[in-house]
Order: sequence, then C-alpha cells, then structure tokens
Amino acid sequence: MKFLLISNSTNPGEEYLGWPRQDISNFLSGTGVKRILFVPYAGVTLSYNEYEEKVSKVFSELGYIVYSIHHVPDPIKAVTDAEAIMTGGGNTFHLVREMQRTGIMQAIRGRVLAGVPYIGWSAGSNVACPSLRTTNDMPIVQPDSFDCMGIVPFQINPHYLDAHPEGHGGETREQRIEEFIKANPDMYVAGLREATSLQYDNGHLKLIGRHPMRLFRYGTTPREIDPGSDVDFLMLK
Amino acid sequence: MKFLLISNSTNPGEEYLGWPRQDISNFLSGTGVKRILFVPYAGVTLSYNEYEEKVSKVFSELGYIVYSIHHVPDPIKAVTDAEAIMTGGGNTFHLVREMQRTGIMQAIRGRVLAGVPYIGWSAGSNVACPSLRTTNDMPIVQPDSFDCMGIVPFQINPHYLDAHPEGHGGETREQRIEEFIKANPDMYVAGLREATSLQYDNGHLKLIGRHPMRLFRYGTTPREIDPGSDVDFLMLK
Repeated sequence: MKFLLISNSTNPGEEYLGWPRQDISNFLSGTGVKRILFVPYAGVTLSYNEYEEKVSKVFSELGYIVYSIHHVPDPIKAVTDAEAIMTGGGNTFHLVREMQRTGIMQAIRGRVLAGVPYIGWSAGSNVACPSLRTTNDMPIVQPDSFDCMGIVPFQINPHYLDAHPEGHGGETREQRIEEFIKANPDMYVAGLREATSLQYDNGHLKLIGRHPMRLFRYGTTPREIDPGSDVDFLMLK
Repeated sequence: MKFLLISNSTNPGEEYLGWPRQDISNFLSGTGVKRILFVPYAGVTLSYNEYEEKVSKVFSELGYIVYSIHHVPDPIKAVTDAEAIMTGGGNTFHLVREMQRTGIMQAIRGRVLAGVPYIGWSAGSNVACPSLRTTNDMPIVQPDSFDCMGIVPFQINPHYLDAHPEGHGGETREQRIEEFIKANPDMYVAGLREATSLQYDNGHLKLIGRHPMRLFRYGTTPREIDPGSDVDFLMLK
C-alpha cells in the first residue's frame, strides 16, 4: 500500500493545496504515475466540473493529468484502470453517500490494498478510515451506512484544532473525540492538525508536516506525536 | 403544542442551565406541571444518573421534580403518562439512536402534538426538527435513520456561531449550512446563537434571548431576525 492522508487542502490565506504541494510531489515521484483519477463527490457548493478544474490546475503544475470520475460512464472500471486515485475534501456525508451509491467505496479499497497510490485530503482522508464517525462535517444527507474504506484500521479527525471559539457553549473538539472513544473504546483516533499528513510508504506509516498530532484512545491520556515519527503501531488491527 | 427549544444549556463561565432558567420558569408557569420526564440519552461522557442529578438540581430550585426515562421499565408508557418532557444536550447521534431504539422518538412526538409541554436544549432541540441533519455533533454512532420528531417543520442549528477559529482551514458554520441548503433546497435552517431559544405557545412561534437568529434558505441571502420577533411563517410546511 501507498497512501497520503492530508488534514486540510489549504491553510487560511494561502493558495489552494498550497502547503501540501511539495509533500504530494515527493509522494508521487518515482511511481511512474502520469494520470490521477479524482473523486469530487465531497463537493456540494461547487460543481464537480469546477472542483475538477481547481484540482487539475494544481496538479498540472506538478506534471500530472487529473480526470474526474463524475465524467466516466463506468466508475468501477475507471477505478480498476486507474494509475492513482485521489479524493478531495468537502462534505464527508455527501462523499460517502455517492461512493456507496456508485460502488467505488469497495472498488477503491481493493485497488489501494493492491498497491495503487491513494491521496486524500479532509473528507478524502476520512473515507480512508473504517468509518466516517470522526468527521467534523454536518450530516446534510444520509448515506446507507457510516462504513468507509478501512485502508487504515484507526480513525482520523482532520482539521484537529485546539482553539475553542470565544463565547461558544458547544463541545471542544477534544470533548467530541472523548465521546467517540467512550462509545468506541477499541479505536485509536488521530487528531491531525492543519498542515500535517499521514504517509504510508514501504511498509511504514509516518506523520509529516508542521505540527504534532494528538492521539486518543479510551482510558489513556491523549498523546502528542511529533512530525517525522514512525507510527507503525497504528496500522496493527 | 407548547415547546421551548434552547440553543445551549450553558454560556462559558456561567452556571449550568444558568441563562435560560428564567425562560424555563416562565414557560412552565401556569401549566400545572409538577413532574418532568427527562431524556438523558445525549449524555456520553457522563452517566445517565449523573446527568439526571445535574438537571434535577436546577429544576428542583425552580420547584419541579425531574425523573429520568433511563430508570423506567416501560419508556413508552412513561412518555404517555408524562406531564411534561425534556431532552438535554450532548451527542445528537447517540440521542437519536437511543430514542429510535426505545421507540420514544415517535411516542414523544405524539404527546407533544397532543399538547404536552416539551423543553429541549442543544441535541434536545435538534431532535425536535424533521431530522438531525443540522447538528454540529460528531457521528460517533450510527442511528437507524437521521429522522427525528418533526415537531417543527424546519431545521435548527444550535450553538450557531459567527466566529471561526484562527488558523483553522475547515468550513465555517455558515459554509456548512450552505451545503445543507444546497442539498436540501426546500428547508429553512434557523441558526440559533448561544443564549437564544425558540418558544411556541398559544399558536405562536417566537425567538427569545439575547441575540438575533440567522435564517438560511437556498437561493436567498441569510436573514437576521431579532429577539422578540414572531416567526410563525416557519411553522408552515
């Protein structure tokens, strides 16, 4: 397997897919990949065409051709034929519903397990987990199931943040994840802060980026893990 | 019908159920209610007993006896017999799963339509809507369905906030609701800011509290509605 699971596409005030550009380039270099199949189904307020264009612009600068799955008549065949696959951010519930409806949830899982490189950011990282249960997104539509690809055996919380808006009486992110691990005591949750990613390559899982990651498990104190750390233990079921 | 749907139990730094205490007292005065059935199923990181105790303490000061549904052998009968019903905040997905499992989702709906006073805050306000699709909570468990009581024909977003944490690359609350109305163009969404409630009494729906509410509908500019405003149009299907 070979995958790059990115917390967020864009830091505030920066260019679209700005900060992870070098990491994406490193990840794909030497793979021989030329064309990347794009899954735009997390996009809700922008059209799939607009989304494809926005992502294509970035990847063409890196030397890759992006083509979106929403154009193809047979999505499963497109997944089977793909050299590399990537899924963008947006609304995870919308993404999961469409991935289940089209059958590509299982198809992509199969291809990634067979070694096809996978890149996801935000919602695209959520769907690499066993389920969508640690998304931050609003459940605007109901998918058939919360089950996702399970490329990794743990849950990722993308956009993990420590700040709590002033005057806000709702739960902090940490409180929400504490609810998750109470209800799901056998699962690790990786709180991926902005500008960080989890990369799997040559049999090793590594945290890359600018910030430590916060790791949660029921009955233990949350742990801070520094960028560069090998976190292979997370891949054990 | 008679209901009070509260955005949040507690403002930061204030006492539990501090700010809405007077509104709750006004709402119940003259009803003859003495005992209130409490639904604690949104509680995840505190036990149902602890939750009951916390809420009972507040309501006993107001002169009401609170008893929680998790103690009763026949929850549907408890709902049928209740003088008034209230549902506390926490995790909406957990709440909805348990309300569906025990059958009280439909039972409470029936009683509220028949005139039994209902109070909800946060997750307890979400479940008064047609579905849970505008909750902010993490989908830590999967309910059978996203459908809720539909006491009101529109969606509430509790804890509506304008602030966006600094350095956060995720969606703003407004962006999340824009995704919802794009996917559900026939629904109003009421963004209920902290320290505000929607009260229905004598055939009128009114916004009460300290802040305006932000009202969303697909294809229109979001509207600010001042406290004290009559918003009966929201009750039309």
